[in-house]
This record gives sequence, C-alpha cells and structure tokens, in this order.
Amino acid sequence: MNQIVECVPNFSEGRRADIVDEIVNAMLLPGVKLLDREMDGDHNRSVITLAGDPIAMEEAAFRGIARAAQLIDLDAHRGQHPRIGATDVVPFVPVSGVPMDACVALARRLGERVGRELHIPVYLYERAATRPDRRNLADIRRGEYETLKQEIATNPERAPDFGPARLGSAGATVIGARPYLIAFNVNLQTSDVQIAKDIARVIREKGGGLKAVKANGFMLRAKNIAQVSMNLTDFHVTGILTAFNAVRAEAEKRGVQILESELVGLVPLEALTQLAAHALQLPALSPQQVVETKLASE
Amino acid sequence: MNQIVECVPNFSEGRRADIVDEIVNAMLLPGVKLLDREMDGDHNRSVITLAGDPIAMEEAAFRGIARAAQLIDLDAHRGQHPRIGATDVVPFVPVSGVPMDACVALARRLGERVGRELHIPVYLYERAATRPDRRNLADIRRGEYETLKQEIATNPERAPDFGPARLGSAGATVIGARPYLIAFNVNLQTSDVQIAKDIARVIREKGGGLKAVKANGFMLRAKNIAQVSMNLTDFHVTGILTAFNAVRAEAEKRGVQILESELVGLVPLEALTQLAAHALQLPALSPQQVVETKLASE
Repeated sequence: MNQIVECVPNFSEGRRADIVDEIVNAMLLPGVKLLDREMDGDHNRSVITLAGDPIAMEEAAFRGIARAAQLIDLDAHRGQHPRIGATDVVPFVPVSGVPMDACVALARRLGERVGRELHIPVYLYERAATRPDRRNLADIRRGEYETLKQEIATNPERAPDFGPARLGSAGATVIGARPYLIAFNVNLQTSDVQIAKDIARVIREKGGGLKAVKANGFMLRAKNIAQVSMNLTDFHVTGILTAFNAVRAEAEKRGVQILESELVGLVPLEALTQLAAHALQLPALSPQQVVETKLASE
Repeated sequence: MNQIVECVPNFSEGRRADIVDEIVNAMLLPGVKLLDREMDGDHNRSVITLAGDPIAMEEAAFRGIARAAQLIDLDAHRGQHPRIGATDVVPFVPVSGVPMDACVALARRLGERVGRELHIPVYLYERAATRPDRRNLADIRRGEYETLKQEIATNPERAPDFGPARLGSAGATVIGARPYLIAFNVNLQTSDVQIAKDIARVIREKGGGLKAVKANGFMLRAKNIAQVSMNLTDFHVTGILTAFNAVRAEAEKRGVQILESELVGLVPLEALTQLAAHALQLPALSPQQVVETKLASE
C-alpha cells in the first residue's frame, strides 16, 4: 500500500495572500499534494493541508517553516487566534500504510532539524510529546509569543525540546503527531437546541461518554434545526457509526428523530472500511479489499 | 478522478498453466493490472481479472482474445463448464469515474474489431446486448460450441453481432458490459439450513424480493452453520447494507441472530461510500471525499 501522511501546518499570516503563496510554493515538492488552504483575516492565520509520502512531507514541512521564518515577523503580528510562532503548529497525521509511531519519529526528526538548522525553539506535542504536560497544545502556547519570549530563557519549565532557549522574530514552533480528525455533524428534527446540547454533553468523552469524541450542540438558524457537532479525534477508538448510533439513541430517548448527517471535509478510506465492517458485522475489512487500493499498490 | 474499468475474460483453458501464462502476458500492457487469476481443471477454464484505464483495457482484451485463438482449439476442448469459444466471455465493468455507457461503447468497439480482424463471431450481451434475447449469457451459449457450430450458418436467430457466421477452432466470443458484482455472504447463528434457504427465497429478486439480488441458502459443514449467500448484481440498485438489513430482519422474524458476514473478493470504493451514506443518513458521500481518492486524482 502507498504510504500517505497528512500534514496541517498553521502559519501566522491570514491577510496577505502573496506571503501565504510563497510559503505554500516552498512546500509543494514532488510527492506532496495540496489538499486545502484556508486563510482567516481575523485570526490572521492560515491553515494548509498537505498530503503525500512521509519523506516528502518531512522535507516540505521543513521548507515551509524556513520560508515562514523569513517572511513573518511575530513582533508585528496581531490576530485573535493564540500563537507562538511564524509557523505556529505542525501536526503529522497517519492516513494510510503508516503507523502512528512513524509519524512520531518524523515529527521528532523534523523538530531536531528545525532547532539545529533554523535556530527556532521547537516543542513536541500530542503523540510526539516527551512530557505529559506538553501533550496539550494550549498548555505549550500559554501566554502566547509575548509571554514565552520573557519566560523561555528564565523558566526551565518552558525550555524547548529542540533549538535555543530564546525567541527570534519567528517565535517558536510546535511539532507533533496525532490521529486523523473527523468532523461529523448530526442534524436533529427539532428546533430545540437544548436537546442537541444535552445529547452532546452525554456522548462526549468529557461527560463520561464516548472516548475520543468532542461534541457540542448548536442551532442552525438558517434551517431552524438543532445540530450535534462532533470531532472524532481518533476513529480507531470511536468510529463514525458508533458516534452516530449514540446520537440517534439519545435523540430517540428524547422523542427526536435524525434529519441527516454531514461529514465535513475529507475522510480516510480506513474510516469507511471500519464503518462497513461495523455495519455489516464483518470480522474485518481491509483497505486492501477495495479495488482502487489494490490498483494503486505496487 | 482516475478512470478505472475492470475486465474479467474467461478462457477455455484451465489445465495447462503455461498456456494461461501466455494469454495473461499478452494482456499485461502498461496501464493494466492483474487483480486475480483463477484456473479450474474440472471446468477446464480460467478466469482472469484485470483493471486499468479504459483504453488500455480495450487493447488488452483484444490481445488476449487474439492469443487465445492461436493457443486454444475448441474442437479438442473438454470441460464441465458451458463454453462456445477459446475466449468464452469478456465482460467490462465500470469501477470508478466511468459511466456504464462508456463500457457498453467499449464492448461494442472491441466486438467489431474482433469480428473484423480476427474473424471470430462476436455476440454482445448484458448491457451491451443489441437484442433482449441476448442479455442473458446462458441463452447465447445454448448448446455450447458443438451446437453453435451447426446452427450459426443456418439459423438466422444465431447470427453473430459481428464477424463471420461460421465457427473456426477458436469458436465464438461473448462480449459485454455489466455492473460490478459483489459476492456477499451472511452467516446465521443456526445449523438449520432450511432457515437460510427460506430467507434467500424471500429476499432474492426471483422471489419478488430485492432487485438485483441473487441468493441461496447453504450449509457450512465445517462450522455447522447456515449461510445466506448473495450476489449483488448492481449495488446501485440494492446496496450491501440494504441486503444485510433484509437478511437480518428475516432472520429475526425466525428467531435467529446474525453470526457474521463476509465480503468475497474486492469491492469498489463507491460501494463503501454508498454504504456509509446509508448507515449515517448522509444525503450523499462521494469517493472524492476520501483522502486517498483526492490524492490519486490530478
């Protein structure tokens, strides 16, 4: 099977498209494909989604970080979104044929190189974290660039995993590995948003519900319906069908039917083979049993 | 999206592997991938599964037919399986990015060329048939090679769609287009084969059940369980989950639970996106929303 890794670097520039162009172009090496590109002016941040083979992705991320350090000055950056660096965060995500461990190794190798060659402090997070208190991105970004600039040299708690303990105008970069995130919403046949909020509270991990599920209830004003909006942060732990069935069961308890669901963005094939195996009571279904995969393999 | 057509030529040689090798090698052009190869000595027949882009598949099938005509002598052929030609039947199957109409056109173009260049009579069948009485393969093969040899010149009903109205030692070839066939079995938690047979009778099209579903009940002796074995002849008409749910509902009526299911061979991605859309109440799910597809496209 072809090895595919996704990389979703976040850069602290969401207003000047020419700057983002330059950074993206630096990353588009052979073997690297641009899947999505989002700019947000209020956040003053762009989120680039790339995928390709692991070696190409590692080099692409390095070049993006290097180019962003030349083009973005954190001392002049203002935006609503928390950030500590020109390249703020770089997650690697296994999509197919690549174990999580390989993405962790990739993140650490890249982090070491960024620290050594670019002299940018690097913090490892999520599955690549070297300390439990660095698993969570928000903890690493506490106080943002401005605070970190003061604390990095004096507070040993904030010493980076790689690179110097001082911030230049490119700030610091958080690099790591995490599972594929699936954004999945279920719309209810009710305009009572409280029902969606109640269901979300019951099914999400924080409320003692399904592991690796974040959920919230929202009102969709245009359609006048309530929605349970979910992030499945590891579909190997809780799959899409399990999450859907949980929402449906909770809705039925409250006398509410499902209107329809929506998958936001792309899903990996493995999430679909897992879903089919679940729905059909198959012992297993491998992506290798899909004609298209078989054709794409060696 | 990449265009993928599957072709499953059946050749009347299932004992001499070197002959089958020669035919397969003649078909393995650039852009053509060998997915499966089955030889059966009793049937004296081999079934080759190839896939690739439509133009390469058309040329590959032509070369396979030409080579088989040189290597297989129907006058000397004996086997249990009905056959009328050295290359007996050649179905083209749309897998992705190709409409059925394109496979019908491909089959007819190939048929014309086989008749004209190789002087082999060609009958078009299934979706490519030009007459309703030629949709069904069994009708075209009636009496096999030996009877057809007598009737082809004298009975206008048996005049081929292309090529001469006389049989050489390569016989005649049936060429056509059909939907992807999914072989899907559901094992029941019972050793009573009659229950599987009853369920099969109710759910299959012939019994007034689900369209495009063939089904039979069998006993799996080694496991001592009954199985409902299905061929889904057009998953766009009846999908895998619909068939599974029908079997489960009929089993529950009879007080029997599902043990597990099995998908035999490969499934096209579209069958899985359809299944996911069904299970999750998504309005639709396109193969383009799968990361791997997006990466494989231009």
